[in-house]
Amino acid sequence: MNSKHSGRRRFLKEGAALAGLAVGAIRSASAQTLASEISEARPKGTKYTTAYGERSHFEAERSVRTHDYAERPFPAKKLTPLQDSVGVITPNAVHFVADHYVPPDIDPRQHRLMIHGMVDRPMVFTLEELKRMPSVSRVHFLECVANSSLHRGGRDAFETAQEIHGRTSCSEWTGVPLSVLLNAAGVQQGGGWLVAEGSDSGKYTYSLPMAKAMEDVLVAYGQNGEAVRPEQGYPLRLLVPGWEAPFNVKWLRRIKVVDQPYMTKMETILHSYLRPDLNGKAVWFLFEMPPKSVITRPSGGQQMSGRGYYEITGLAWSGGGAITRVEVSTDGGRSWKDAQLQEPVHRKAHTRFRLDWNWDGEEAMLQSRCTDERGDVQPALEELSKRWGASEEYWKSTSVTAFHFNPIQPWKVTREGSVHNALFKFNSVPSNGPDGGGADSHSDH
Amino acid sequence: MNSKHSGRRRFLKEGAALAGLAVGAIRSASAQTLASEISEARPKGTKYTTAYGERSHFEAERSVRTHDYAERPFPAKKLTPLQDSVGVITPNAVHFVADHYVPPDIDPRQHRLMIHGMVDRPMVFTLEELKRMPSVSRVHFLECVANSSLHRGGRDAFETAQEIHGRTSCSEWTGVPLSVLLNAAGVQQGGGWLVAEGSDSGKYTYSLPMAKAMEDVLVAYGQNGEAVRPEQGYPLRLLVPGWEAPFNVKWLRRIKVVDQPYMTKMETILHSYLRPDLNGKAVWFLFEMPPKSVITRPSGGQQMSGRGYYEITGLAWSGGGAITRVEVSTDGGRSWKDAQLQEPVHRKAHTRFRLDWNWDGEEAMLQSRCTDERGDVQPALEELSKRWGASEEYWKSTSVTAFHFNPIQPWKVTREGSVHNALFKFNSVPSNGPDGGGADSHSDH
Repeated sequence: MNSKHSGRRRFLKEGAALAGLAVGAIRSASAQTLASEISEARPKGTKYTTAYGERSHFEAERSVRTHDYAERPFPAKKLTPLQDSVGVITPNAVHFVADHYVPPDIDPRQHRLMIHGMVDRPMVFTLEELKRMPSVSRVHFLECVANSSLHRGGRDAFETAQEIHGRTSCSEWTGVPLSVLLNAAGVQQGGGWLVAEGSDSGKYTYSLPMAKAMEDVLVAYGQNGEAVRPEQGYPLRLLVPGWEAPFNVKWLRRIKVVDQPYMTKMETILHSYLRPDLNGKAVWFLFEMPPKSVITRPSGGQQMSGRGYYEITGLAWSGGGAITRVEVSTDGGRSWKDAQLQEPVHRKAHTRFRLDWNWDGEEAMLQSRCTDERGDVQPALEELSKRWGASEEYWKSTSVTAFHFNPIQPWKVTREGSVHNALFKFNSVPSNGPDGGGADSHSDH
Repeated sequence: MNSKHSGRRRFLKEGAALAGLAVGAIRSASAQTLASEISEARPKGTKYTTAYGERSHFEAERSVRTHDYAERPFPAKKLTPLQDSVGVITPNAVHFVADHYVPPDIDPRQHRLMIHGMVDRPMVFTLEELKRMPSVSRVHFLECVANSSLHRGGRDAFETAQEIHGRTSCSEWTGVPLSVLLNAAGVQQGGGWLVAEGSDSGKYTYSLPMAKAMEDVLVAYGQNGEAVRPEQGYPLRLLVPGWEAPFNVKWLRRIKVVDQPYMTKMETILHSYLRPDLNGKAVWFLFEMPPKSVITRPSGGQQMSGRGYYEITGLAWSGGGAITRVEVSTDGGRSWKDAQLQEPVHRKAHTRFRLDWNWDGEEAMLQSRCTDERGDVQPALEELSKRWGASEEYWKSTSVTAFHFNPIQPWKVTREGSVHNALFKFNSVPSNGPDGGGADSHSDH
C-alpha cells in the first residue's frame, strides 16, 4: 500500500499531472479577477443558521434525478445519486429506499421489540432499554438484491450511476448486536432460524439463519450519528451486513426463533430469480451480495471540461468482506492499473477508490473491476453471461430483473467529453474478461 | 485490544450483565403485549418518502436544545447535541456553528479560489476544476478553541453535554490536499506562511504555517458524502486537522503565500487567551487541540431508568493524533477501567468508547480520561488549574473564557437516577488527578 501511495505522490510531484492542470484546467490569476464578490446580499428572509441545518439551495436545485423516484406515493422508491458522492458515507437524506408496503409512523415511546419462539425467556424491549445495552457502530453498505438490473423502459434508457446502480448506500450504523438479545432470551436447541417482522402495513417478514444472526447482525437504532431515519426503519431495523437488503427488516417489531426458514411471500415470490441456466428453478439461500464497483466520476451524464488531468474515482463493495483491490481501465479493458483505496477500508462497506488520469481528448472507455478479501473478482458482462447461460437477447428483454448482478460498468467518453452508459450497448462494449484480454467477440450463447 | 474484546464478550456471556438486564430493564413477553399496533394511520398529508429525506417528527420535537442557539440571527451559533450522538459521525444538520460575520450565500458556479502571493504561478480555480484534482477523504473533528469553557450566565448554569462541550463535531471531509494546489502554484523561497480569507461579510482571515499546510490540510468541498453545508463554508472551506477550529476558514476564496503570520484581528483580539500564569501575556502559536473526552450517555440532564446494566459510552479526541486509551471511573476517581474503543480509530477524530457497567442504584460519579498517541493525558480540573495557576475563584468568574480547556468531565448520578453536571461544582467534585488518587482536598492556589 505504501508503494502505491508514494507512487501517487511521485506522479503528482513529477509534474505530469500539474502540466495537465496548467494547460487544461486552470487559468492564471493574472488573467482573471475573483468573480465572487464579498458581502453579496442574501435572499430576503434567508436564515443564516437553522436548528436542524439545511443544504445549499444551489445543491437542492441540482438534484432533480432523486426527485423523479421519490415523489411516487407508493411503494416508496429512492435511488442514491452515486455520481455526486464523495467519500464513503451516504447522507441519510439520500439513502436508497425500496419499500413494499405502506411505511408506519412510529412513536418511539410506544414501540416495542419482542423476541419469542424457541427461547427460554421471551422478552419485550422498549427503545430506552435497548439503548442501555451493549452497542457497536460499524460502517456497512446496503444493496437491493436487484440493483444494477432494474431498467424500466429498456436497459439502455438509463444513463447515470444513480439510475443504474443507485440502489446501494453506506452508513455508520449503531445498535445492539442481535447475539446479545438472543443470548439474553436463551435460544433453545434446534432454534436454527429466526423470522423477523416489520411494522409496515403488510407486516414485511423475512427468515434469517441463526448462524448469521449470531455473527454480526445488529438491531440498529442509529444511522450516521442520529436516529435511523423513518425511510430506513425508525426507530429500529435489522442490519444484516453484506447480505441482500431484503433481509434488513425495517420498523422491526418482532423476532421469532424457529426451526426452519418460513419461506415467506417476500422471500419466495418477490425475492427469487429464475436464472436462465437453471431450467426454471430459482436460486435460494444465496445471501451475500457479490463484489461490485462503479466509477462515479467521470460517469454517465457528466460532461468533461477539456483534456488534461482528471481524478477517476468510484466506489467498490462486497458482501464477502473487505475490498482488497480495484483496477481501472481507461482503454476498454486492454490495460488495467491499480487504484488507490481510501483507508481505512471497512469490511462489507463502500470503499472509495481513486486513480490519476491524463485525458488526451480522444475517445475512451472507463471501467473498474474490484476484488474482495476472498479473491472474488467482479466479472465483465460476458463472463457473467457465460456463467449464467444468458444471451445478448436475454439481456435485451426488459422483463428480466437479474439478482446479484455485478458486471463491470463501462462508461464511454466521447471526444466532446460527454460520458455515456455503455453497459448493454452491445455494439460498443469491448470484451474484457478478468484476464484483461481485449478481443472484440461477444458472448452470444 | 483482542483481550479487551474477549473480556467484554466474557462479561456478557457470564450473565452478570444479563442478570442485570432481566431484573432492571426488561419485562418478559408474557407480561405484556406489543404496544405498537400494525398499520397505524399516518398523519394526513404525510409523505412516505421525500426526495431529500427528513428525520422523524418525533426526533424533531425532542431537539429543543439545539434550537435555543440556532435561532439567534447573528452571529450564528449552534451546538452539537453530543448526548444524543451515536457512533463517531456528526450529522451535517447538527454540526456546531460559531460564526463571526454574516455568512455569504454563494453560487458555486460563480465561486473562485485564488492562490497568489509568494508563488511562481498565481492561479484561480473554479469548483469544477478543483473536483478534477486529486482528492482525499478523512474523518476529522473540529473544535472551537473555547469549547467546554463558554458558560453564559455562570459556569454551573449548564447541565448537558451539548451545552458544555457541544462546540465539537466530526465529519468525513473530502477535498484536495492544499499541498497539491501549493505545489501547482510553486511556493517561493521564504514563503513560510499563508493567509486564508473567507467570503463572509468581514473577510474572516487567518494565518497558517506552511509546514502544516503541506502536511495534511484540505481544501474541502465534501462533508459526510455531500457538498459542504452552507453553515460549514459551502462550497469550499479549509480543513486543518487537529488544530483550533478558527484556522478552518469557511467560504474560502483566497490563499496568499506570505513570509510571516499576519496577526489578523481574528488571530489576536478574538482568539488569544490571557492565561493566569503568564502575567497578562497571551499564548500564541499553540495550535493543536489537546486530548479531551466526555461521557455522552449517561450524561447531564438524562434520567436513568432503574438499577442494572448500562453501557457507558462517550467520545474522545485529540489534535495530537489517535486516541490510544480511554479510562472510565464510576466511583469519583478511586478506580478506573479501560473502555473499549470503536475501531477503526481515526487520527484527529472523535473516537467512540464504551464500557459495561452495572449500576447498583447508589450515588455515583462518572468520569472519562483519555490518552493520545503521544502519551498526552486529559487532566482533571485540579491538575489543569495547577498548571495554569488558576484558583477556584478564577473559575467562578463568568467573565473568563479559557482556551484549550480540557478537564475531565464528572457527571453525578443521584439515587433517583438523575444525572447532573459536576464540573465547577466545587463542593461535590472529588479530587482525581491522573494518579487516580481520591483525596478530598481541592486545589485553591
